[in-house]
Amino acid sequence: MKVVLIGAGRLAHHLGGALLSAGHDIMQVYSRTMESASRVAAMAGGSPTNRIADIKADADAYIVAVKDSALPDLIPQICKGREQKVFLHTAGSIPMDVFKGMALHYGVLYPLQTFSKERKVDFRPIPCFVEGNDDYSVGVATELAGSISGNVRLMSSEERRYVHLAAIFACNFVNHCYALSADILAKHGLPFDIMLPLIDETASKVHAMSPAEAQTGPAMRYDENVIRSQSRLLASNPFVKEIYDRMSISIHQKAISND
Amino acid sequence: MKVVLIGAGRLAHHLGGALLSAGHDIMQVYSRTMESASRVAAMAGGSPTNRIADIKADADAYIVAVKDSALPDLIPQICKGREQKVFLHTAGSIPMDVFKGMALHYGVLYPLQTFSKERKVDFRPIPCFVEGNDDYSVGVATELAGSISGNVRLMSSEERRYVHLAAIFACNFVNHCYALSADILAKHGLPFDIMLPLIDETASKVHAMSPAEAQTGPAMRYDENVIRSQSRLLASNPFVKEIYDRMSISIHQKAISND
Repeated sequence: MKVVLIGAGRLAHHLGGALLSAGHDIMQVYSRTMESASRVAAMAGGSPTNRIADIKADADAYIVAVKDSALPDLIPQICKGREQKVFLHTAGSIPMDVFKGMALHYGVLYPLQTFSKERKVDFRPIPCFVEGNDDYSVGVATELAGSISGNVRLMSSEERRYVHLAAIFACNFVNHCYALSADILAKHGLPFDIMLPLIDETASKVHAMSPAEAQTGPAMRYDENVIRSQSRLLASNPFVKEIYDRMSISIHQKAISND
Repeated sequence: MKVVLIGAGRLAHHLGGALLSAGHDIMQVYSRTMESASRVAAMAGGSPTNRIADIKADADAYIVAVKDSALPDLIPQICKGREQKVFLHTAGSIPMDVFKGMALHYGVLYPLQTFSKERKVDFRPIPCFVEGNDDYSVGVATELAGSISGNVRLMSSEERRYVHLAAIFACNFVNHCYALSADILAKHGLPFDIMLPLIDETASKVHAMSPAEAQTGPAMRYDENVIRSQSRLLASNPFVKEIYDRMSISIHQKAISND
């Protein structure tokens, strides 16, 4: 399929690479700056541009992978003059209808993964959630997603919002817990890598049992002495102490409600 | 080495199995109930007992793997009449000196891992932190730890407290984030397994970069629209909403301070 990539961030970078590998023709990469458009185009193919007026009109699909807040401004400009084409955005929390009235065929291709620049990602196992306003758009979104991922599902905008919210907990908040852990260790001259076997096992366990069954630790046992003494260790950092206290109470509440 | 295991919880279970595999002689397993002592003894060897008076006096080492709150009561009873032996506890947040005045040789063997009953654990990569009140105790703790783990370090009680605190964030709080994610999905009829590739990649990334570098998501980008709309989705659960809000602010604060 002939694809134009709108955006040159981390997701556009990885998606572009995966689409190229799957045999698609990335005709063009648009970004606000020529520098970032060129960087992605050099990897995924196609010509770079930083002018919306220069975006080609003869692609099969336009994939809009920009930050959510840029979508409302960008979409009318991109659709204009290309109304017969298929437009797909890649955002978890933005409804498909952000394209409504701007184009005839539109939808969503949302890959559920955390992307960092300097890191290879294997797209095959990544769940890709697709949606379209008509059969044609669903077909294009499904074909593109299915060419890079072995795990494609149709999903409504409403469900996708909750998947995105769940992902914030399972990824962004988890990583922040790693970061707070690293801060505590660094403050006492201890290396973060001592946590890696524990981090790996914690992630691995929830493949085999539910997170509720996998929960361990003083808050789960409601070992008040440990909870109080650990909370006191964080007294110099009231904000992190507050997170410690709330997470401990929340773990305990969940343990009680599951009993 | 001849070892008596005091306790029959998850850690005692896994530690007993690892010590048996390493060729040690688990002489006896003590637990408050005969049922749990027998269960661990059947797996790790030795005779089960639920009577402190029946604990043998001729072991080389007594490993006390019980919940933290049980230690103050239990330790005087276990040490009495066996004062020449080596006593080791396995707790992250309890100082070594909990044995002071009760025995001549004592210390700590703290394996940094999350243990669940129905799950095999490979002890070799698990960091084991050891401490002892004299060379003899350090020697025994190091020998036992080194026979099951390839990752043994001497560590003071003071440092161990912070390692334990860091582990609460990197494991217990992380798992609770998984649990909150699973709750959100379940409430909307969605399966938790769609999160597994994301969970695995999030854990895998911090092997290659620091958690601060690995952070992604709306709070990191400070995408206020997404943050506000996601927070509103949690309005029916004020406690989880509060966790969402605090974690989002904390991620943003950390992003600013790292800039």
